[in-house]
Amino acid sequence: MSKKIKLAILGGGGDSLIGILHRVASAMFDQFELVGGVFNPDLEESKKFAREIGIETNRVYKDLESFIASERAMNEDERVQVVSILTPNFLHFPMAKQLLENNFHVICEKPLTTTFEEAKILQETQKKSNSIFAVTYTYTGYPMVRQMREMIADGVLGRIQKIDVQYYQGWINPIIHDEEKRANTWRLDPEKSGISCCVGDIGTHAFDMIEYVSGLEIKKILADLNYLYKDNRMDIDGTILLRFDEFVKGVIRTSQIATGEENNFTVSIYGEKAGLKWEQENPNYLYLLEEGEPMRVLKPGHVYNSKLSLDGTKLPPGHPEGIFDSMGNIYKGVARAIRNEPYHPGEFPTMRDGVRGMNFIEKAVESHQKGNIWIEIED
Amino acid sequence: MSKKIKLAILGGGGDSLIGILHRVASAMFDQFELVGGVFNPDLEESKKFAREIGIETNRVYKDLESFIASERAMNEDERVQVVSILTPNFLHFPMAKQLLENNFHVICEKPLTTTFEEAKILQETQKKSNSIFAVTYTYTGYPMVRQMREMIADGVLGRIQKIDVQYYQGWINPIIHDEEKRANTWRLDPEKSGISCCVGDIGTHAFDMIEYVSGLEIKKILADLNYLYKDNRMDIDGTILLRFDEFVKGVIRTSQIATGEENNFTVSIYGEKAGLKWEQENPNYLYLLEEGEPMRVLKPGHVYNSKLSLDGTKLPPGHPEGIFDSMGNIYKGVARAIRNEPYHPGEFPTMRDGVRGMNFIEKAVESHQKGNIWIEIED
Amino acid sequence: MSKKIKLAILGGGGDSLIGILHRVASAMFDQFELVGGVFNPDLEESKKFAREIGIETNRVYKDLESFIASERAMNEDERVQVVSILTPNFLHFPMAKQLLENNFHVICEKPLTTTFEEAKILQETQKKSNSIFAVTYTYTGYPMVRQMREMIADGVLGRIQKIDVQYYQGWINPIIHDEEKRANTWRLDPEKSGISCCVGDIGTHAFDMIEYVSGLEIKKILADLNYLYKDNRMDIDGTILLRFDEFVKGVIRTSQIATGEENNFTVSIYGEKAGLKWEQENPNYLYLLEEGEPMRVLKPGHVYNSKLSLDGTKLPPGHPEGIFDSMGNIYKGVARAIRNEPYHPGEFPTMRDGVRGMNFIEKAVESHQKGNIWIEIED
Amino acid sequence: MSKKIKLAILGGGGDSLIGILHRVASAMFDQFELVGGVFNPDLEESKKFAREIGIETNRVYKDLESFIASERAMNEDERVQVVSILTPNFLHFPMAKQLLENNFHVICEKPLTTTFEEAKILQETQKKSNSIFAVTYTYTGYPMVRQMREMIADGVLGRIQKIDVQYYQGWINPIIHDEEKRANTWRLDPEKSGISCCVGDIGTHAFDMIEYVSGLEIKKILADLNYLYKDNRMDIDGTILLRFDEFVKGVIRTSQIATGEENNFTVSIYGEKAGLKWEQENPNYLYLLEEGEPMRVLKPGHVYNSKLSLDGTKLPPGHPEGIFDSMGNIYKGVARAIRNEPYHPGEFPTMRDGVRGMNFIEKAVESHQKGNIWIEIED
Repeated sequence: MSKKIKLAILGGGGDSLIGILHRVASAMFDQFELVGGVFNPDLEESKKFAREIGIETNRVYKDLESFIASERAMNEDERVQVVSILTPNFLHFPMAKQLLENNFHVICEKPLTTTFEEAKILQETQKKSNSIFAVTYTYTGYPMVRQMREMIADGVLGRIQKIDVQYYQGWINPIIHDEEKRANTWRLDPEKSGISCCVGDIGTHAFDMIEYVSGLEIKKILADLNYLYKDNRMDIDGTILLRFDEFVKGVIRTSQIATGEENNFTVSIYGEKAGLKWEQENPNYLYLLEEGEPMRVLKPGHVYNSKLSLDGTKLPPGHPEGIFDSMGNIYKGVARAIRNEPYHPGEFPTMRDGVRGMNFIEKAVESHQKGNIWIEIED
Repeated sequence: MSKKIKLAILGGGGDSLIGILHRVASAMFDQFELVGGVFNPDLEESKKFAREIGIETNRVYKDLESFIASERAMNEDERVQVVSILTPNFLHFPMAKQLLENNFHVICEKPLTTTFEEAKILQETQKKSNSIFAVTYTYTGYPMVRQMREMIADGVLGRIQKIDVQYYQGWINPIIHDEEKRANTWRLDPEKSGISCCVGDIGTHAFDMIEYVSGLEIKKILADLNYLYKDNRMDIDGTILLRFDEFVKGVIRTSQIATGEENNFTVSIYGEKAGLKWEQENPNYLYLLEEGEPMRVLKPGHVYNSKLSLDGTKLPPGHPEGIFDSMGNIYKGVARAIRNEPYHPGEFPTMRDGVRGMNFIEKAVESHQKGNIWIEIED
Repeated sequence: MSKKIKLAILGGGGDSLIGILHRVASAMFDQFELVGGVFNPDLEESKKFAREIGIETNRVYKDLESFIASERAMNEDERVQVVSILTPNFLHFPMAKQLLENNFHVICEKPLTTTFEEAKILQETQKKSNSIFAVTYTYTGYPMVRQMREMIADGVLGRIQKIDVQYYQGWINPIIHDEEKRANTWRLDPEKSGISCCVGDIGTHAFDMIEYVSGLEIKKILADLNYLYKDNRMDIDGTILLRFDEFVKGVIRTSQIATGEENNFTVSIYGEKAGLKWEQENPNYLYLLEEGEPMRVLKPGHVYNSKLSLDGTKLPPGHPEGIFDSMGNIYKGVARAIRNEPYHPGEFPTMRDGVRGMNFIEKAVESHQKGNIWIEIED
Repeated sequence: MSKKIKLAILGGGGDSLIGILHRVASAMFDQFELVGGVFNPDLEESKKFAREIGIETNRVYKDLESFIASERAMNEDERVQVVSILTPNFLHFPMAKQLLENNFHVICEKPLTTTFEEAKILQETQKKSNSIFAVTYTYTGYPMVRQMREMIADGVLGRIQKIDVQYYQGWINPIIHDEEKRANTWRLDPEKSGISCCVGDIGTHAFDMIEYVSGLEIKKILADLNYLYKDNRMDIDGTILLRFDEFVKGVIRTSQIATGEENNFTVSIYGEKAGLKWEQENPNYLYLLEEGEPMRVLKPGHVYNSKLSLDGTKLPPGHPEGIFDSMGNIYKGVARAIRNEPYHPGEFPTMRDGVRGMNFIEKAVESHQKGNIWIEIED
């Protein structure tokens, strides 16, 4: 009998987007059950949030120490097995270290820590434990990213000769061009968010993605960052030259001042035999380029995909994974109706939609059978 | 205190895709808790499935009658409030009817029933109950479909003058061209799947979508269906002319023999002032066409969207909703690792990925500060 | 020795777009030389236009009769061999007939005539002559349309089972919704433009394209047209059901009220084995869809294309044919400069652009050779 | 009276693609008349080519010296006014210099010369002449490139803060990975093609494009080139960091080993207020990105475009400029038929196509008028 794995979350309360992302993801394959955690530094807020998301408050703790003490005291069968760390960056290190030292499995948001030094200590800590440790470089979970990795491993590209990865956003514009705002934003404050803004936040995704899909290691880098204003202490844009080996080169381009870009993360890898391209904003398309051949467009869920890729696809081809959200929205509307909360008539299709649909089907067949004539739909 | 709504499911066991879709969707906004149901006609199979998806077996029933009897006997506080019907089409009607008569809320897959006659009876049954009833025309839940509806309601298009909706798939090809297969496929057997294959399965989505987004009602239709072989009794392709009023016309084009198409459902609505286009396979883009103006491309999560659309978006712009799956896949890999099941090294990013990322950030800043020189990444 | 073929044009004077199109096209493969014609009903205007386009005025005639008389009097070696008819529709028939009766070759704009009756007479006239006669259904000349035709002829799709062609424009909107304008537009006047506006103007392109690429003949049609206003006498929108044989069906969708559409002409053909799709607004892409295979994207100029397709491609892959215009625009700027006419600094790249380019190349190599250091570009 | 400008061409004979491009472009606006030149070092070949392209041989010369001597001896009215230099790179400099010294206008292919030194001498030579001198950085002639330039000049982007230009091709792959081929290819021989292969050939286009559209000047560069093999003497890939001023940065990425890429030249320019993106392979689309606004897609020929852009568009919106080629192909087929050369039935639409089209129009209207019934098309 496979019981669900008991999961706790640190942080991620309130409207936290990363909180929603981890909760939905953890529910997706019927594997995890969220039982508690520390959602907020304030215990009352934390409990309030637990009620909002419909979980019991008895395993909501005031801090990590109480969490560890109480959970360690439970039967192994009841105890939380894995903890997701969704707190601000500077808390990743101390929290992850304590959890590892107490034999919890850990799922940690990126960046892992605020310094390389801390990261190495954490690595040593894990080595001494038996814990599983995952860093959520989320984009590596896409089916077509996994497919890219497997195709490269299988030699589809031949020897890799050129790698170009872009991660362009424009969100910092309204902040960076306002003297006061840029002085008072925590993301631009090295005390709070570490040595780098743009490279630390999105450049690392690019770095990890390259090593994930290519199987190569980046050996040397040369960086040209942009701070845009003299009084700004953090990079918000940068181009980083990459050296894999003497003749294998690449570039990471990363920006938070690419005005109007949303989350334009693209990966292009060219080998002796072929090239592969992928874009995060349209994640269900993988482009295979071969000299003198028509470009091929691979999509998730097809038999031609690798086992690793297919394992990450739940629905048949043509159903963008976003369809979960579409159905989720309908369920949300139904929940409102059941709870007698106000809702918009467009939130879920009703009986009348169903009835009209049946009428349509019958009339369509009737029109056809009578020789393609006009038939009225009943009201 | 908002407790989760108790949900049961009829059908959807085993590898059922529709089962996965409803379970994930129901979990998405922390509103529902799946507590049991009848997943399979065989009780043991049903219980086995419950264990696989990690829920208790005590509220898994042998049939709908036992479900109703037992649940009605519970305290209102404990009782299942809403039931999702995911069984084969011919069971929708009897199940939905019984549930309504016993005051359960119902979420029912489409098509609502197998005949218009049944549909009208069901409608009457609901009128006598206090139940919420939703039919899952899933595609109406997409944020940009909702945005389309709101823009049209707000008059952005002016008076509508032309509607063109396409729903093209190619999946039936391997069946239809094989004499034996087409004789033995339940979807092509009127006894099992009703009067129509193509119109019934996907044409209804087109029909409902048109009325959902346009606010208009289809008054008359003229259908030309295709059966492709003399011995085939069910339509697998069809073009249906639509009349809204004397001068407002449209067309539904629907096919299961559009070879190579996956789930190519598109909506184009043209009004006196502008046009709107949307494609299900790239559901995050809504195209606004105006005479003499650059085309505008609307995406989810932006302030320019309507309240109804924004309510259906959980993440900021640029994060395709499929990112939930990406994160979900990472969680699945972690679950395997925790359960000591075999897993692929590419299933989740590890400590080493995190450590190298920190190293990269620091070296990037160092390279820049030293005047854009090459720096080695430590191993 | 291959001398150029002597070409005359009837109509196409002034700003006529169709005139530009035919002149440029006739020059493209160094095969034709425009020597004269009747550009305008007014001889002086006609001569003025000849001077504007830089041709001699001695073979500009006052009407078709003088043209025929004078040209027939010349040596065969000097005589115009082929005449392009670009006049209003109602003149196509009488002009083409006279030209054929006098043994000129003819290139005629579509629609061929204003009635089917005239068309049949013209066909008889040609049969009695030795003349070549082309109707410029222009879109059949695209390399990827030709490739589509050849692939279908080669059996790539297997037996065709479904054809769907769309031709949507929105240009008539500003006219049709204005009572006065729609009463006074020649295109909406049956006396001037024949029995049909939308079907006649663009529906015919769809019809011809289908027969051109599929090799099939349309046997029967069922049309539903839209006139939008009671006082409007001409169709401006229509859906036309097509029957090729009992089980091969299709649809032509055509509109001039698809608001915001420019010239959205698309072709989708599905066979037992595969599907092919093409869009006029992005004419260099041909999409091959096969069940269970990645979609392939064919582009012009590649070795995998048919002889017929390659014959229509002048430049290597990746150079959209529009590049001729890009170069043409530069030449136009140079012409203005040479003629001492005012011109914009952005009309052609100058010596300074060339010099800076050379500087850039040398500095790039120098920067690299010195170990990737910064080097200044000289002014 | 505006006579055509007399044009001669140096080089561009035989199958030269650049020759076709310049000939077609020069004919496009009825401004130039090709009268002669030196198409080939061998006079007989040169004359043969003149006959093939249908021009007189009397002004085809054995070398540049004879060309200059003979043409200078003619009346100004008859003399060649402008010369296009399409010869191998190392001849650009001596030829251009002589032509300028003899007061001819010059249109010169890029790169201007083989060294910066030569380029500066040429610049001085032009200063002393009255000649117009254009370097054909062809891509600056596209309507939407011109539109980009004008929008930036008008301040649509605000202060520019980031420029990213890519020029990726894959054509050198089959050469570079073959030891013998790479030793014997002229493009990889510094004696024959100058100091650089990739930067010289396509990097310069990127450089010129940036300065053309942005109005900024590149002040400093840092280049990282790739030669891929130790025995290869020429760069075939490179990333070049750009500095405009202290806080305005950019990057040029250029490659001939981006396997499978055709001519993937893209331009992205981000300013304080908005971003603009353009791709050479789909040159009719210009993307305007603004924070919090739907992306706008600008296309040629619309009233919202600048005068400079509209001046470069000959046809109405929706007609990709490649339509000239489509029509050109039809004319080519007609030429073959007239010359009694063999041709493919698909090369031009015939009388029968025209007749069937007329039949279709009439039957469509008849079907509609009779209440949407089936009507047969006559054969």
